[in-house]
Amino acid sequence: MSECLQTILESYRERVDTFILQQLNSLEANAPVLRDAMRYSLVLGGKRIRPVLVYLTAELNQAPTQQVDYVAAAVEAIHAYSLIHDDLPAMDDDKLRRGQPTCHIAFDEATAILAGDALQSWAFTLLTQAQQIPAHTRLTMVQTLSQAAGLQGMCAGQSIDIMATGQRQSLEELEQMHRLKTGALIRAAIQLGAQAAGISKPAERQALDNYGAAIGLAFQVRDDILDVIADTETLGKPQGSDIEHHKSTYPGLLGLAQAEQKCQNLRHQALHELDTLPYNTNKLAALADFIIQRNK
Amino acid sequence: MSECLQTILESYRERVDTFILQQLNSLEANAPVLRDAMRYSLVLGGKRIRPVLVYLTAELNQAPTQQVDYVAAAVEAIHAYSLIHDDLPAMDDDKLRRGQPTCHIAFDEATAILAGDALQSWAFTLLTQAQQIPAHTRLTMVQTLSQAAGLQGMCAGQSIDIMATGQRQSLEELEQMHRLKTGALIRAAIQLGAQAAGISKPAERQALDNYGAAIGLAFQVRDDILDVIADTETLGKPQGSDIEHHKSTYPGLLGLAQAEQKCQNLRHQALHELDTLPYNTNKLAALADFIIQRNK
Repeated sequence: MSECLQTILESYRERVDTFILQQLNSLEANAPVLRDAMRYSLVLGGKRIRPVLVYLTAELNQAPTQQVDYVAAAVEAIHAYSLIHDDLPAMDDDKLRRGQPTCHIAFDEATAILAGDALQSWAFTLLTQAQQIPAHTRLTMVQTLSQAAGLQGMCAGQSIDIMATGQRQSLEELEQMHRLKTGALIRAAIQLGAQAAGISKPAERQALDNYGAAIGLAFQVRDDILDVIADTETLGKPQGSDIEHHKSTYPGLLGLAQAEQKCQNLRHQALHELDTLPYNTNKLAALADFIIQRNK
Repeated sequence: MSECLQTILESYRERVDTFILQQLNSLEANAPVLRDAMRYSLVLGGKRIRPVLVYLTAELNQAPTQQVDYVAAAVEAIHAYSLIHDDLPAMDDDKLRRGQPTCHIAFDEATAILAGDALQSWAFTLLTQAQQIPAHTRLTMVQTLSQAAGLQGMCAGQSIDIMATGQRQSLEELEQMHRLKTGALIRAAIQLGAQAAGISKPAERQALDNYGAAIGLAFQVRDDILDVIADTETLGKPQGSDIEHHKSTYPGLLGLAQAEQKCQNLRHQALHELDTLPYNTNKLAALADFIIQRNK
């Protein structure tokens, strides 16, 4: 990763983390344990790829960053809720996440379920609070994010994933699952950034969406590769956990070399889409590289 | 219950049920089992008090009913999601709801968690789709509903409830918990109805909110009373389940006679608030009576 992107990623990561904590701490603490569990899961670390995508896309057309904060935080809140619920015993039953105890281990299962639920609600509150973004745009954002999160996106992907555990999926089935499970929210992050920036030309929106779809899938292929090649310490979760959970993976279906090749192809596709845009897309291009080359 | 209110309740219940099914069936079925679980929980019956409150409040000032459908369905979706999650083994561990197997029994625990999650997302999508309601009003609706559902409302109440199980709560603690756990969503239903109807005078909004707070609490006191006096068949869930779960209740803290008296006081308070309004509030008054007198 270039030093430049490293700096940008860190600065946006810090920015969204500070903003999230500020906002969360300003809420009335009727249920302090619940708020602690929400905070615990939000600040557990992580690359903050999704909020960074919101910021970088919004930056293309000079959206006001202080307004974009709400949007970036909303996307991260949805992501954090999904991780809490995915880790539950009835789902993936993971005890470690980013090297730390998962929410239901650090707290308890009921609190983890509620923390996820409350994070989802909060995401939509946050979107309504970006007061300098026109009301109709914020409303479109609510629609984009809620559709990406629910039955037509992330939840459907997770449901297909649970159903498929222990079964061999075809490449098409695996891809459809990932498009929903991780791709939908990554694409939503980019769409929300574009909405915040007032990027409204259909061709531009489409190119950004194609970029999002390509890096979303690349992210997952790379995740599967890392599950095979990285060690537990680097990964922050047990190495080989996909295999242990009897899940179909890209390296499992394609072999490692072909999976690496698929990653590269998706990278080229992503960069090609960016080239069609009349903006400075260097940072989004660097982010695509980072996603494909990361080692954790 | 008067025959007139019975007819109104049934007609709105049918209306919102038909609308919900229509909308849900029109969504792409990427994950058919997940959609089945959402539908199962939505059509499990129930009194539909919350959507009816949306309709009756919106009616006060002639809001277009076809637009109110989206709002009523959104509130019911949030309610249905909360029941699914409340029934989970890690929460109240209930196997029956309205005389039928709960979602995690009829399906499985992972699917039940996801069905709740996806219903919450869907509620916010539905609010955005009431296209003839001005965008800024729909945005306010998203804010009202998300705040009532999350850390500042329903989820906080459920968290307090879980924490308090097995402990003796004071009357103040019990009341605060119920104001959040059930009161917040009932008040939100009324606020959303008022927003849909363009009722904007602060004094009118306040009177409606006070009415909502009173019937919300009365609903819960009556629920606690029914848990003591009704039989399992009428109730659709095991009689005495609160006592079995070691939960504080109004009859437990106040005695049955005082709890009944509290219900009546709340009824008077609710009716008094309605009397201050320049609308025909007969139906809302009848609904308050129904809530206080219902036997299941």
